[in-house]
Amino acid sequence: MHIDLHKIPQASPDDISGLDAIITAGKLKPAEIIAILGKTEGNGCVNDFTRGFATQSLKLYLGRHLEAEAAQQIIYIMSGGTEGVLSPHINVFTRRDDLPNAPKRWGLVMGTQRTRAFSAEEIGSMVMVETVAQSVRAAIQEAGLTPEHVHFVQIKCPLVQSSQKKQIGSTHSSYQSMADSRGASALGVALALGEIQPSQLQPESICRDFSLYSKVASTSAGVELQTCEIFVLGNAAHSTSDLIVGHDVMQHALDSEAVNRVIASTGQLVDQVVNVFAKAEADPSGLVLGRRHTMLDDSDISHTRMARAVVGSVIASVVQDPMVYVSGGSEHQGPPGGGPIAVIATQ
Amino acid sequence: MHIDLHKIPQASPDDISGLDAIITAGKLKPAEIIAILGKTEGNGCVNDFTRGFATQSLKLYLGRHLEAEAAQQIIYIMSGGTEGVLSPHINVFTRRDDLPNAPKRWGLVMGTQRTRAFSAEEIGSMVMVETVAQSVRAAIQEAGLTPEHVHFVQIKCPLVQSSQKKQIGSTHSSYQSMADSRGASALGVALALGEIQPSQLQPESICRDFSLYSKVASTSAGVELQTCEIFVLGNAAHSTSDLIVGHDVMQHALDSEAVNRVIASTGQLVDQVVNVFAKAEADPSGLVLGRRHTMLDDSDISHTRMARAVVGSVIASVVQDPMVYVSGGSEHQGPPGGGPIAVIATQ
Amino acid sequence: MHIDLHKIPQASPDDISGLDAIITAGKLKPAEIIAILGKTEGNGCVNDFTRGFATQSLKLYLGRHLEAEAAQQIIYIMSGGTEGVLSPHINVFTRRDDLPNAPKRWGLVMGTQRTRAFSAEEIGSMVMVETVAQSVRAAIQEAGLTPEHVHFVQIKCPLVQSSQKKQIGSTHSSYQSMADSRGASALGVALALGEIQPSQLQPESICRDFSLYSKVASTSAGVELQTCEIFVLGNAAHSTSDLIVGHDVMQHALDSEAVNRVIASTGQLVDQVVNVFAKAEADPSGLVLGRRHTMLDDSDISHTRMARAVVGSVIASVVQDPMVYVSGGSEHQGPPGGGPIAVIATQ
Amino acid sequence: MHIDLHKIPQASPDDISGLDAIITAGKLKPAEIIAILGKTEGNGCVNDFTRGFATQSLKLYLGRHLEAEAAQQIIYIMSGGTEGVLSPHINVFTRRDDLPNAPKRWGLVMGTQRTRAFSAEEIGSMVMVETVAQSVRAAIQEAGLTPEHVHFVQIKCPLVQSSQKKQIGSTHSSYQSMADSRGASALGVALALGEIQPSQLQPESICRDFSLYSKVASTSAGVELQTCEIFVLGNAAHSTSDLIVGHDVMQHALDSEAVNRVIASTGQLVDQVVNVFAKAEADPSGLVLGRRHTMLDDSDISHTRMARAVVGSVIASVVQDPMVYVSGGSEHQGPPGGGPIAVIATQ
Repeated sequence: MHIDLHKIPQASPDDISGLDAIITAGKLKPAEIIAILGKTEGNGCVNDFTRGFATQSLKLYLGRHLEAEAAQQIIYIMSGGTEGVLSPHINVFTRRDDLPNAPKRWGLVMGTQRTRAFSAEEIGSMVMVETVAQSVRAAIQEAGLTPEHVHFVQIKCPLVQSSQKKQIGSTHSSYQSMADSRGASALGVALALGEIQPSQLQPESICRDFSLYSKVASTSAGVELQTCEIFVLGNAAHSTSDLIVGHDVMQHALDSEAVNRVIASTGQLVDQVVNVFAKAEADPSGLVLGRRHTMLDDSDISHTRMARAVVGSVIASVVQDPMVYVSGGSEHQGPPGGGPIAVIATQ
Repeated sequence: MHIDLHKIPQASPDDISGLDAIITAGKLKPAEIIAILGKTEGNGCVNDFTRGFATQSLKLYLGRHLEAEAAQQIIYIMSGGTEGVLSPHINVFTRRDDLPNAPKRWGLVMGTQRTRAFSAEEIGSMVMVETVAQSVRAAIQEAGLTPEHVHFVQIKCPLVQSSQKKQIGSTHSSYQSMADSRGASALGVALALGEIQPSQLQPESICRDFSLYSKVASTSAGVELQTCEIFVLGNAAHSTSDLIVGHDVMQHALDSEAVNRVIASTGQLVDQVVNVFAKAEADPSGLVLGRRHTMLDDSDISHTRMARAVVGSVIASVVQDPMVYVSGGSEHQGPPGGGPIAVIATQ
Repeated sequence: MHIDLHKIPQASPDDISGLDAIITAGKLKPAEIIAILGKTEGNGCVNDFTRGFATQSLKLYLGRHLEAEAAQQIIYIMSGGTEGVLSPHINVFTRRDDLPNAPKRWGLVMGTQRTRAFSAEEIGSMVMVETVAQSVRAAIQEAGLTPEHVHFVQIKCPLVQSSQKKQIGSTHSSYQSMADSRGASALGVALALGEIQPSQLQPESICRDFSLYSKVASTSAGVELQTCEIFVLGNAAHSTSDLIVGHDVMQHALDSEAVNRVIASTGQLVDQVVNVFAKAEADPSGLVLGRRHTMLDDSDISHTRMARAVVGSVIASVVQDPMVYVSGGSEHQGPPGGGPIAVIATQ
Repeated sequence: MHIDLHKIPQASPDDISGLDAIITAGKLKPAEIIAILGKTEGNGCVNDFTRGFATQSLKLYLGRHLEAEAAQQIIYIMSGGTEGVLSPHINVFTRRDDLPNAPKRWGLVMGTQRTRAFSAEEIGSMVMVETVAQSVRAAIQEAGLTPEHVHFVQIKCPLVQSSQKKQIGSTHSSYQSMADSRGASALGVALALGEIQPSQLQPESICRDFSLYSKVASTSAGVELQTCEIFVLGNAAHSTSDLIVGHDVMQHALDSEAVNRVIASTGQLVDQVVNVFAKAEADPSGLVLGRRHTMLDDSDISHTRMARAVVGSVIASVVQDPMVYVSGGSEHQGPPGGGPIAVIATQ
């Protein structure tokens, strides 16, 4: 299995010029694309339509280069919010069969899956946790991975819009439903990887007992889908990729040591980092390193937006590149106030 | 001259409990306070009333401990905006005559000044530049400093409110008047220190020719005053303080090297840092390290807010303390997209 | 009993110049002030410090004109948020004994009360409902009113800050605690006035069963107090006031008919309206008059802010005066999406 | 000439289900569409991608029903911002040749035009004014109108993004460029209709001398185009439409009388109103009806957003329908603080 990753800047959510240039130059074959993970410049919250706009634009473009069925197999995950220095871009993952005689070495492999569609009632429930877990296991198998070598599981999950809330008698806001959906999806990953045991998990644990978490899950909610779309990254011996992936956990938003550590874990230098993938949240304790922060009490700016700005700045200052992937809302993804971090580097 | 600095957390803009505890414990004499520099939790823009609220609360409290005239001598500078991890606090600077036999060593000294009140027309003009320069020179003299050993000049300057704009026929927004006021004040510092020559400066340079800048000026605009309030920090041989100050320039928002360098310049370790004082702005080129940022095109969040979040995170990740002073809008304060940074450390 | 009302513009939260002018001119005696109800220009949400700033400024000013004890008797209720055309102002209510031979006629009377302080756990609970009900009954009695002639009950209630949440293990946001506090206070009014019966009310009704509501309650939450401060307005035969009050209910945000109706209910013309007091909320159904609104899904602007802008505009367009009192968050205050509206007019 | 108008709700910017239902039912022929004017739910400012998303979605859908050339002839104008009660929708205008024997009566006619693309330097300049004027004259002629019977001229115009600003050495923000573009386009309308004379207009008048304005222009700026797209509505004797259009001018944001007057001008009752088209702006004097408003000093919410919320509420409260078209930023469109208002009604 040969996985490649192209990190491509976007000048706007519908900008496909960068992708087109690479395809036109023959450096990327559309038929080999299996997933596109993007950071778009909306607010990353409920009414962020930049995610859908980017997805529609990519599908429209790739639809001209691919058979309808092939185009539909691609996993599109757009995470909104490029606050602070974060720079809008897409990560285009390709997979192809190995070239004859391609040398195998310990390196990046990848699997993808899609769950069935969830109803509004199911979003954030145990049904969602278990359905996601099942699909994550399938993706791991598809990649030829063992759970201990999984370094990153990205999921795009649905939210409940205010128009649906009434139907299900929900008293929660749409914004809260994003948290519930991210949390349940992350617990699905933790379950699939054995990070938590089924016996530890109760329906009331979801978005309440944050001592339960995955160290590799990264989940984003969006208005533009009803299923969960999943991809899994890890290292394996049957890889022929030039890339390698590692992961670690940021214990808090300013944990720059974890950033250095995860780079080191790939055995590569900072200059060889292709991209960093991290989750961010405003510390629910109201404190960072013992100091009060004001993110949770700021009614003008959603705390997820500020959390991305912070963690994005910390990571970008280490790798000296603001084009990194930081996604907000890390319910059950790493410890409270912290989050998983993964790095893909060229080896 | 003996200068001391107490960094005190605030739970809200009107929280004087921390200051009261220190005064009650006999660790700080109200009569020795010469300046209070605070970070308050408003938006740091036009309608940020947390600055005035904090100032009123401090004056109300200190008015009970001081003669009316002594209370009026104190310089209050509140800078709004604790985005991201930045933590609301005040820096209380005290100055007293040396104790008998106090050993002198190269260390912190300080001077303060107030300009006359400015009219709405004068805000952001050459008249402001020159009036500020004169007062900065007076503050340097008061501190017993030479210009080359000045490391930080903090100024609080006025803005033009929309109610005043009509009178003066301005087509600028109040938000723009904040930039003009900060820019003219910073050029006043540069002029006073010889960083720029009078011949280089034209009226049309203000907030246009950003190749002209000070490396030590830090200016904040606020609705609550009509004068400029100024304090100057530097090192001198006649100091008996345990503190020492240094400065450097961040070339861009992610210049963590400059943070390390300025700490090293004080000859102290990171653990001895009392506070860091820095300016931040969204790079006007639209790029940080060659990557597009979206701060200037985000109509939901003022770019000054995001710039503070970024630089605050970078500095806090180095010193592992989010209670640092980062102020937004660095017109003529350091190079475009960067800004001055100063550190006070215990020696 | 002689009640008077002065509506005074404010140029900023700490502007007491208007009040000072009236007092200096001898038109208002500080000792007769019993309540000040203001609209301040903050966001009206958790981190709105304009309320506390206005209150502190008023107390500071009146402290110079009153004995300490008299000053402490005044009820200060500042409601944040002057979105759209709403214009910052204070309503200063005075009460004095009748002048000898003052002619009595059906008109405005008023009572005030303060509850005990509430703990974080009690905010939004049945304990709060019942404690408020008791105090409302006391205020009605103080005013010499009968429940059927009560037209407006204003309450300022506390919220739970994020720093307190951890202590009580709350999973709710501070923003949600504002809703809970407003809702419980409003149910307290409904209970006191017999609008709902004790048997109808369960702990789980609070902020869930919105078929239970008061037609005269107006409650605002703020960070600056731990008690509930209450005043009650109604008409009675023992009044010697030139003022009269009436109330009605807006069924939805665009119910301009209710605005016309409430004015008519006072028997006066629109030109005699002194002020209008109304509650606003974004319709929780997601629809206004059958059309989708986007207030609840807008993650950039709190829906309470937009709701005030809407209802403020509708009322101001009827009375052709934007200096009206519209407060956000009408949980259990009028029907869902609507809210109580009261008018004070000169007769 | 037979003009028809379908007002169609949208559940999201990419929702074409309503349009599809009408087309599928045979009530609207895609080939007859000449213009689509929409209100989308973004912030209506620089980074509002809902406009582009809606346009792309409509083009994608109609591309399946139309020849490529016909699809390209349609004018798409999406105006962002459905603050307050405003409800996202599209207005689909169709034009067809008259049916044989169709009775002619005084009623709606319509013309469309597109200008050439503008460079960043030209946006907001006299070149833009004159180029727009020329195209407006052409659209009037195409409609068979005389200038005195033109009631509404809608223009979508480009803005300068921050990435382009550097190239042209602009010190203005992208947000300001939206105002300049709207202003120049509106002056183009005024010039074409003889509302102002060429001799009155100097380059420095644009966005400065607001005594110059059009009473029928409605201009919106957006990131998604470089040309101006224009349509003109008026009444003429050669119409066979069931619709009639009228216009008036709101003198201020609360001018509900103007709303009643413009409906009356069509000779129809309020129930026959199909849609209202109006422009809104925060009064640049800082006052509405003599009362201070805070929209221009609110650094958390763009004043254009609040202005739309206000005027939308006022109009919706008169017609009791929140699905009306209110667009922000009325530079040279009506008097300062006010704006043009047009009504299309069934006769």
